[in-house]
Amino acid sequence: ADSAKGRAKAVQCQACHGMDGIAKIPEAPNLAGQNEDYLVKALKDFKSGARQNDMMSVVAKPLSDDDMANLAAYFHSLGR
Amino acid sequence: ADSAKGRAKAVQCQACHGMDGIAKIPEAPNLAGQNEDYLVKALKDFKSGARQNDMMSVVAKPLSDDDMANLAAYFHSLGR
Repeated sequence: ADSAKGRAKAVQCQACHGMDGIAKIPEAPNLAGQNEDYLVKALKDFKSGARQNDMMSVVAKPLSDDDMANLAAYFHSLGR
Repeated sequence: ADSAKGRAKAVQCQACHGMDGIAKIPEAPNLAGQNEDYLVKALKDFKSGARQNDMMSVVAKPLSDDDMANLAAYFHSLGR
């Protein structure tokens, strides 16, 4: 996975999750340093509908497998 | 919410999430310093079935609203 590509894609995440992975709103989780496997599964589950959230169900829909892997690598790379 | 009561309850979380909120297994998220509102919603969604996970759907079932608030307070209190 390519965390630099993930960073580029993460501009669409930052209003809620922050470019630094520290959430801007209390409903959203911090993502900085989160486990990559967990983040990929969360994105896949939002895309498939297995997990539901007003915001995430919409924004995850167009993500490719590569996008999800890259985003997870980026947020994981930020460290805790 | 009472983070000391949350800590007592968290012994059942620690095999996966760690007493320090740093996950022991890659499938589980780190919880240390996570936003309280987010953690309460996650537990409620696992209990109601809105969110599904082999482990969490089972362990969240018996938790009371107080338990969930206390657990969220404990893991939030650990800081990032």
